[in-house]
Amino acid sequence: MDNKAFFNLIYGICMLSSSYEGKTNGCIINTCIQAANDPARLAISCINGNLTPELIKKSGIFTLSVLDQTVSFDTIKRFGLQSGRDVDKFEGFPVLSDSRGLPYLASEADAMFSCRVTESIDLGSHTLFIGEVVDARVLSAEPPVSYAEYHSRIKPRAKSEPAKEIVGWKCSIFGFQYEGKELPEDFMCPWCGHPASDFEPVYAG
Amino acid sequence: MDNKAFFNLIYGICMLSSSYEGKTNGCIINTCIQAANDPARLAISCINGNLTPELIKKSGIFTLSVLDQTVSFDTIKRFGLQSGRDVDKFEGFPVLSDSRGLPYLASEADAMFSCRVTESIDLGSHTLFIGEVVDARVLSAEPPVSYAEYHSRIKPRAKSEPAKEIVGWKCSIFGFQYEGKELPEDFMCPWCGHPASDFEPVYAG
Repeated sequence: MDNKAFFNLIYGICMLSSSYEGKTNGCIINTCIQAANDPARLAISCINGNLTPELIKKSGIFTLSVLDQTVSFDTIKRFGLQSGRDVDKFEGFPVLSDSRGLPYLASEADAMFSCRVTESIDLGSHTLFIGEVVDARVLSAEPPVSYAEYHSRIKPRAKSEPAKEIVGWKCSIFGFQYEGKELPEDFMCPWCGHPASDFEPVYAG
Repeated sequence: MDNKAFFNLIYGICMLSSSYEGKTNGCIINTCIQAANDPARLAISCINGNLTPELIKKSGIFTLSVLDQTVSFDTIKRFGLQSGRDVDKFEGFPVLSDSRGLPYLASEADAMFSCRVTESIDLGSHTLFIGEVVDARVLSAEPPVSYAEYHSRIKPRAKSEPAKEIVGWKCSIFGFQYEGKELPEDFMCPWCGHPASDFEPVYAG
């Protein structure tokens, strides 16, 4: 089995929200399909253990904001890379409320869906929820953003450190400095007799 | 509810195949997500009444070919726009077989997944199948094609009929013919007295 095959599945990205007994939370998911018609139903998959699916299981309702091309990494970070158990993700963030009071994004999203859970299947790592769409709105004319675009364009690339040039080695015990890019394996500090493994690189600049 | 909101969900496209007691079929679906890990499971949704989901229900197995950017409209037409009850869709078409003997595309696809159904939910219009991935392979380095790209780039545009030139109007009751592009609103057939609304256009040529 080649796990790279899974990278060829295409996904959009949504902010998924739910609320139960005064606790409201949202998270980022990349799994949302229309599963049926008459009435329209969506299928979404959520990681078990996260707060939002826990709220959905209790309340039986969720709302999706379909993220569009204008979405910022800050928004994805806010909803996707921290836990609602530690912070109120909606604090100071502009949202609108659907008819059940669930938040959806006031910007950076091009569509919203208010859903009522009709089926849920616990799949161990995830729960799959089927939700009947009770409201759907177009929010902007921006095209939706794909998960691949998020990775290629929105997610910051890890800053690779510029390769540093080694110009010498310094004994970490007594501070003797050896000049040269490569320290001979059998080198010993002439001051304290410690071996090469006790030397640290000295970089240029 | 604004049904246009559903156009903002992003999908890829797959050729879905199954086989039961010597009958093999394939169809096109645009709904496939990874629903869970450990083991990896996919969720797909299929229109009830079609032959392929019927074969899946009987055999409990299916195979997906993830269509890539090189897919032609002919291939989509072959698997998506005719019924396997009328034709053998695989006749004369190059495919490979997975370990269970199910066909997957030998070209125009960048990944394949062999799945074993673990759950299925009948949603009326569609059945949602959860399939444990028993094999997955990368087939090419081409990027996958999205459903939106299919509509904008691969599906032929409807040929708009050339605008016909109106040269006259004919009374649909008695056949009197008025010559001229525009029939006066208050015109009446001099033969039968019927009003302009009973006249039909006469085209050039």
